[in-house]
Amino acid sequence: MLNSVFAKRTALLKSELRKQGLDSFLVTKDVNVSYLTGFNGHDAAAVITMGRSFLFVDSRYVEEAKDCVKGFDIRLVKRSLYENITEAIEDNRLKKIGFESAELPYEVAERLKGLIKKSFFVPVRGLVEDLRSVKDLDEIRLIRNSIHLAKDVLARVRPFIKPGITEEFIARKIDIDFIENGAKSAFDPIVAADANSSKPHATPTKRKVGKNSVVMIDMGGILQRYNSDITRIFTVGSIKPRMAKIYDVVRTAQAMAIEAVRPGERIAQIDATARRYIRSKGLGKYFGHALGHGVGLEIHEKPTVSGLNEGVLRPGMVFTVEPAVYIPKLGGIRVEDMVLVTDKGCEILSA
Amino acid sequence: MLNSVFAKRTALLKSELRKQGLDSFLVTKDVNVSYLTGFNGHDAAAVITMGRSFLFVDSRYVEEAKDCVKGFDIRLVKRSLYENITEAIEDNRLKKIGFESAELPYEVAERLKGLIKKSFFVPVRGLVEDLRSVKDLDEIRLIRNSIHLAKDVLARVRPFIKPGITEEFIARKIDIDFIENGAKSAFDPIVAADANSSKPHATPTKRKVGKNSVVMIDMGGILQRYNSDITRIFTVGSIKPRMAKIYDVVRTAQAMAIEAVRPGERIAQIDATARRYIRSKGLGKYFGHALGHGVGLEIHEKPTVSGLNEGVLRPGMVFTVEPAVYIPKLGGIRVEDMVLVTDKGCEILSA
Repeated sequence: MLNSVFAKRTALLKSELRKQGLDSFLVTKDVNVSYLTGFNGHDAAAVITMGRSFLFVDSRYVEEAKDCVKGFDIRLVKRSLYENITEAIEDNRLKKIGFESAELPYEVAERLKGLIKKSFFVPVRGLVEDLRSVKDLDEIRLIRNSIHLAKDVLARVRPFIKPGITEEFIARKIDIDFIENGAKSAFDPIVAADANSSKPHATPTKRKVGKNSVVMIDMGGILQRYNSDITRIFTVGSIKPRMAKIYDVVRTAQAMAIEAVRPGERIAQIDATARRYIRSKGLGKYFGHALGHGVGLEIHEKPTVSGLNEGVLRPGMVFTVEPAVYIPKLGGIRVEDMVLVTDKGCEILSA
Repeated sequence: MLNSVFAKRTALLKSELRKQGLDSFLVTKDVNVSYLTGFNGHDAAAVITMGRSFLFVDSRYVEEAKDCVKGFDIRLVKRSLYENITEAIEDNRLKKIGFESAELPYEVAERLKGLIKKSFFVPVRGLVEDLRSVKDLDEIRLIRNSIHLAKDVLARVRPFIKPGITEEFIARKIDIDFIENGAKSAFDPIVAADANSSKPHATPTKRKVGKNSVVMIDMGGILQRYNSDITRIFTVGSIKPRMAKIYDVVRTAQAMAIEAVRPGERIAQIDATARRYIRSKGLGKYFGHALGHGVGLEIHEKPTVSGLNEGVLRPGMVFTVEPAVYIPKLGGIRVEDMVLVTDKGCEILSA
């Protein structure tokens, strides 16, 4: 990605900091450091100020950081990151430093507060995550590529879904296909046949696909750091009438929810649209989780598409829509697509 | 694993809690929850008390938890984990609750402190990690299996290390081989040819193995939840005299450090043994990281084998011994083995 992308993100962050009355921000979450700086190693931290900004990396990564990061002063962590952070705060006379309170461990925060006597250390929740919830054009392109690959992988795996094949075998096929294509699974694929699928996050087992089976596959990849996440139902032979009916209910609920996606709509409303329909069919108690979640650098990120989210949809948001019905002993049906909020409505990225 | 294994671990934890004057402990780190309960899903938490103990899981995992976990009351998280935790604390009249302060985010800890007015909420650092640093027999068996597989994978990949093959290709071979054997890479394999290997955590590139090349491979797998981690140097054609000399220094430093491993020895002393020798050869400034780290359920866990560790070795500890010399532009040599502290000395698990 161009350096201007990172400069733009940092500028947006600074503007948020100003609104919140902060003169600087300590970034400690790996994926947020990566989003702001382009550095993809571990255990780094960044301090963003209104003037210079700093990236602290340890000796394993210092060469790499110097090669790939622009617009940040790269500093080697020698004894402890605490030292580097306090030094940057003192040298730059920072007074109100925000930190990622939903991420930074209690103990680290307390220690920093103890070290930084002359400044305020202010808990801030989800600031970079909020920026990240609205994707820029580079990110949308990368997410499209990631979804494209996931669909290709699934198309190549499909012929193997036949009687006698184990869930495990199919899951491994998926893992290997991603790797052969320069990516990797974003999470352990869920491949669940028949009754196994009543566990929303079933682990693939040696259970075999039968002559008449319903197989749920939830999979996704990380390609060039961006995630994809889709769930599909495959049938082998004939399907029980009750499962067929549930499938129709879930598909309709998904279509209704996606239809409701547009800029300015309340996020809770999207969840409610699907949930209300599933409830109207007497299946409400079998749909326990939220309708969806944002996807980007993390497989689960903002926005969480649930009844508890008080926010509204904004153009550039990318998230899953995955209504489901899980009936213990019988099985589960979940259908999951990724959508992009456009200026006027919604695009199904995984159609 | 047998349920008795988990009962034993919980009993050890309770004995530690008593020593620290705590009547209960909140476990929020996934891998610690897994170690104590056998539950392997995400976003769970456990509360261990001197009487009953509780495992809180969300709707995705409740069936699985009921199937696989014994000795804990399984409770479904409905609205929020906070509710379940405060309920357990009030119902069981807990007064001094330890929490994992190096892990729990600042914000979560502050919120819990706010909710739990009549009890003390006590920051505790690395309690379960300390227990985990000494492996029980089940764990040692699983770690042996994991290392055995990693060595097999490396043996199968070895014939591919020849002129014209890219680092990326070799890394993918490793990833795929682990998957084909029911495991997966514990971390993205490091495959670094020649000058690339001067970055301790180099990312595999399209750089090709040359007619005369030194290739560093750092890889490991997760098999049945337990990690392995080894680094080997492969040579193709003839090797520069300077690199050959560095290799000898690193190998000797490793042998000296391993020779020093025995119960009761100071951990810092193991690091010092290798470092002193490398320094004596004028290469000290090219060895920036710690000598090693514990390996188990996590790829990096206690004990950290560095000059800063004030602890002593105990039988059952498993860790890496990985001295290295990285010379910018020229290349790096790291050799890494995993060792087990035995009752009398040391066993090289990855020999």
